[in-house]
Amino acid sequence: MHTIPVGVLGASGYAGRELCALINRHPALSLAFATANSQRGETVTLPLGGSVTFQATDDVQLSSAALIFAALPHGTSAEWVARARAAGAKVVDLSHDHRIGNGASDGIPYGLTELRRVQVRDAQVVANPGCYPTSALIPLIPLLEQGLVAPQGTVHISSASGVSGAGLTARLDLLFGEVTENFRAYGTGNAHRHLNEMRALVGELGADAELCFTPHLLPVARGILSTITVPLARPVDDAIAMLRARYAGERFIEVVDGLPELRQVQHRNVVRFTARPVAGTRTPMLQLFSAIDNLMKGAAGQALQNANLMLGLDEAAGLPA
Amino acid sequence: MHTIPVGVLGASGYAGRELCALINRHPALSLAFATANSQRGETVTLPLGGSVTFQATDDVQLSSAALIFAALPHGTSAEWVARARAAGAKVVDLSHDHRIGNGASDGIPYGLTELRRVQVRDAQVVANPGCYPTSALIPLIPLLEQGLVAPQGTVHISSASGVSGAGLTARLDLLFGEVTENFRAYGTGNAHRHLNEMRALVGELGADAELCFTPHLLPVARGILSTITVPLARPVDDAIAMLRARYAGERFIEVVDGLPELRQVQHRNVVRFTARPVAGTRTPMLQLFSAIDNLMKGAAGQALQNANLMLGLDEAAGLPA
Amino acid sequence: MHTIPVGVLGASGYAGRELCALINRHPALSLAFATANSQRGETVTLPLGGSVTFQATDDVQLSSAALIFAALPHGTSAEWVARARAAGAKVVDLSHDHRIGNGASDGIPYGLTELRRVQVRDAQVVANPGCYPTSALIPLIPLLEQGLVAPQGTVHISSASGVSGAGLTARLDLLFGEVTENFRAYGTGNAHRHLNEMRALVGELGADAELCFTPHLLPVARGILSTITVPLARPVDDAIAMLRARYAGERFIEVVDGLPELRQVQHRNVVRFTARPVAGTRTPMLQLFSAIDNLMKGAAGQALQNANLMLGLDEAAGLPA
Amino acid sequence: MHTIPVGVLGASGYAGRELCALINRHPALSLAFATANSQRGETVTLPLGGSVTFQATDDVQLSSAALIFAALPHGTSAEWVARARAAGAKVVDLSHDHRIGNGASDGIPYGLTELRRVQVRDAQVVANPGCYPTSALIPLIPLLEQGLVAPQGTVHISSASGVSGAGLTARLDLLFGEVTENFRAYGTGNAHRHLNEMRALVGELGADAELCFTPHLLPVARGILSTITVPLARPVDDAIAMLRARYAGERFIEVVDGLPELRQVQHRNVVRFTARPVAGTRTPMLQLFSAIDNLMKGAAGQALQNANLMLGLDEAAGLPA
Repeated sequence: MHTIPVGVLGASGYAGRELCALINRHPALSLAFATANSQRGETVTLPLGGSVTFQATDDVQLSSAALIFAALPHGTSAEWVARARAAGAKVVDLSHDHRIGNGASDGIPYGLTELRRVQVRDAQVVANPGCYPTSALIPLIPLLEQGLVAPQGTVHISSASGVSGAGLTARLDLLFGEVTENFRAYGTGNAHRHLNEMRALVGELGADAELCFTPHLLPVARGILSTITVPLARPVDDAIAMLRARYAGERFIEVVDGLPELRQVQHRNVVRFTARPVAGTRTPMLQLFSAIDNLMKGAAGQALQNANLMLGLDEAAGLPA
Repeated sequence: MHTIPVGVLGASGYAGRELCALINRHPALSLAFATANSQRGETVTLPLGGSVTFQATDDVQLSSAALIFAALPHGTSAEWVARARAAGAKVVDLSHDHRIGNGASDGIPYGLTELRRVQVRDAQVVANPGCYPTSALIPLIPLLEQGLVAPQGTVHISSASGVSGAGLTARLDLLFGEVTENFRAYGTGNAHRHLNEMRALVGELGADAELCFTPHLLPVARGILSTITVPLARPVDDAIAMLRARYAGERFIEVVDGLPELRQVQHRNVVRFTARPVAGTRTPMLQLFSAIDNLMKGAAGQALQNANLMLGLDEAAGLPA
Repeated sequence: MHTIPVGVLGASGYAGRELCALINRHPALSLAFATANSQRGETVTLPLGGSVTFQATDDVQLSSAALIFAALPHGTSAEWVARARAAGAKVVDLSHDHRIGNGASDGIPYGLTELRRVQVRDAQVVANPGCYPTSALIPLIPLLEQGLVAPQGTVHISSASGVSGAGLTARLDLLFGEVTENFRAYGTGNAHRHLNEMRALVGELGADAELCFTPHLLPVARGILSTITVPLARPVDDAIAMLRARYAGERFIEVVDGLPELRQVQHRNVVRFTARPVAGTRTPMLQLFSAIDNLMKGAAGQALQNANLMLGLDEAAGLPA
Repeated sequence: MHTIPVGVLGASGYAGRELCALINRHPALSLAFATANSQRGETVTLPLGGSVTFQATDDVQLSSAALIFAALPHGTSAEWVARARAAGAKVVDLSHDHRIGNGASDGIPYGLTELRRVQVRDAQVVANPGCYPTSALIPLIPLLEQGLVAPQGTVHISSASGVSGAGLTARLDLLFGEVTENFRAYGTGNAHRHLNEMRALVGELGADAELCFTPHLLPVARGILSTITVPLARPVDDAIAMLRARYAGERFIEVVDGLPELRQVQHRNVVRFTARPVAGTRTPMLQLFSAIDNLMKGAAGQALQNANLMLGLDEAAGLPA
């Protein structure tokens, strides 16, 4: 069977490996190359089976791939995106180098697929969203679009992520002995980079809501749970029905009645969420509870979802939903 | 050496066992009895060594103890508190039967020790605070006392607790296979019982702030981390200094510069917390980050701290700080 | 597309749910019914997505399924196997009721697929092997077949299993708070039921080796690692090559050079193993290291592998390898 | 109160920090210095409370300490032991540089306290045993002393350790994301360094038994469980009684009836073990199950136990049993 060759730059990290694993199982794609300078020549076992051998970035022909996933460190990605374009390849950039709220996006669409499907389909380059923003924005967007967030109100986003969000890096504070039986906040004081991304999108949707974002580090390998508290402009009768209507037909959005858990989304390319009114407050408030797999819908999965669109394939090809 | 006999009712749960372990190592107390009807006659190993043999509640002489810890299920505790008093014993009640915000407190002080030390010292019965309220109120109290919380503002309390907070009960959703690599909210919509307790205390301190409380279940055995976001009535220059001044001399309160972690408080009878301004909001906001061991300062440790006071002992006797 | 209807009896346990999840994703099977008396009418989310609604066992038509998986408690399974046969359905029995070494097998083949493929293909009923025996026997069989195990020598099998091996049962000793950061042996003194099964198969293969089997409980959800020490009848030059030759062409057997880890086999229907000589002993010894997912190749996966054969399908249909 | 000054070289690792924590709580010792070249000037929080500030090794006066704990990397320790002796300090060396079976011991006693108490008391330098040997030798010694191990028989030691045994080093394979939900053997083929130590001691006790030792890596922070299978020279009627008699009066040895678990020994300076006959074998075999905290009785705790003896203090001073 004829397959489309794709490449992965920066394949040795958690997101890069996940991409290689997804491409290996994809019915219409084949892996042209996977680069990792520090591990060139090494063969590693992929999650859920299979293996990949890494090459040095300078040893691969960028033009041998129809589309390239750039899973490189933030700051170094933009240059490689330019090179890949020059070589004629489409690009999904998983870094924040071209994301809204983080400098020049140069007309590159922000690949929150369910919001920007048309632009993604026609793009040469897509900036793949951050994991926290994906978990928080998908539930928030229907409220923002309908003007339901109280003007000048503060939306509180309290998120907790598994350690793979910090990448496959040899840091003492990420050792098993330091993380097990532990929990802590980090990047506090509204200082996390992903906040810019969320604020920029809220602005694009015309809302003047403030955001207060607090990330935490969980003793789990993968998954993000976001608890989002929204001051409402007016009461909402049936928030869940409204959310369902907004995402009707979406294959990777699950609006559910029960509270979502990490276990329900791990290894799946979905955002699973629900809504609950807050009792006993003077002005109406709504809470959204959202779960994603940070390596799937929060990184590699959404990247592949975008790539499928850019390559004219079924959006869901090769993606576990 | 002469020791004071104390008893534990409901000793087979997590808090009860922790109490037995603390009493076993206490320099001035001895364990007169430990009851657990469902496990009568059984001997179990305690955390950090030692063991205890359970008796049936009806088989013990309540009057043989100078002070009794009631670690019974909520709703069944009040009756035993009355019996213990009738038998001449002082009581520390770890249930919420006599806590503020949960029905009749009958003049029984709410044993948040650092706030109610004088009342506790003279009390015959003390209602030991809940774990979540202890973690949230200790950092909040200085702000409430100084009128720093914005009137009619909403204080957001996002907390995460280890599984021992749910007790030693054979529930399928608390099995290792269901909790590991998982995370979820519960008791949402401002519906958790501990919210009443926190609201009542906020009211006692004369503030009209609203509370929005969201608990989560962590894949750890013990510990609570609370992230508390406070809208301020006016800016605060040096919140940490102010918090330190409020708790100067307290041996079980740690106001720190860095962000607290569960590992720093496990097996210790402390509340460890810090404060951080929130950047980029129109009106000033402050975040408090607080860590406790839910079985120590959140239950058995604070109960012993109160018992020490009620018995005229050093408040810190037998307590790891 | 036309699919073959299959049913699951006892679908609410870990193995039963895994079966339902596999059937949901199977290209040629459909789920006719899934029974769980204690949870009749409930709908639960399955691992990796999808859901299933349980019926009472008495409410289903056994004859509506071409093949039935019996994932019932040991001891109660045999009766239902008989009923299912009477209704004209083929059966894969996941209990030990019909396994070798555990009473009357009535000509029912022991479904260690790679050893009994011919018999499984023609069988009306197959006894699906236990999880520990699968992990230990697959690596051992080549040595047994070639007479390499020292006569009257003792083979030491030290195994460690994740908690799902104990089933989805509300036992206090399986709570997260009791299992996390813990490790222990159990079923010691050569007393575990699975030992009979292993001994019986060793006997069938004509060896007179003794077995000493020691299971342990790991703080992980799924996976078994077995470390097997074998006294050799004679030195073996290249054990890995010999093992590879024995299983050449097998799609669910991975003989590897490195030491296997649980992570490499979770959610996959494989036995992954290697061999290492033991240095510095008077007589030659070999160690085998084997990893499986106890719910996949150790239960539901192997059951489906057998069912595929019994139904004339590709042995690998619907199975992640 | 007058205290004895002691120092810690290499204080930033897991064993070093544990030592500092123990010294901080010790009634008769004070911490003269704690060195860690890579973290000089840093202050870290210790387990169970307190903190320590590290100095560079060259900046401390070795002679300011009456006794020095050397928790330095293997190979670099011997030189510092010599310097400390020259400065007039006694030394407990936690590396294997002076352990039996690992080169020149120079008359330095092997500090398995319960076996070498007299020699330790009079020593200027003591070589603190390895964690695995401590867990395996304490249960085995009574059998070896009484000639109960079958001549030329093989003793199988299957051990599993928490990650702190590998030290506080930034290795990718020790990251939380790589260790959680995982389990694997390592150092296989009888190649682990601790085997030399165990063989040497078996030889000193006059036994000619072979050892086969297989270590595994557990997803827990601390603790070692060893399962030891012993071919017997003759049947033993009541092994537990015999083991209890051997260690009568020992405060850090717990011979128990039930199977030991890691949870029962964490943060305690004990070896907890039991014995079980193996059923159904031609020749008699016995299994020993042993649990220790690798950082306590397996490192810092036993080091302090030895130091107490060397300094003329109560052997149990400052040690949680």
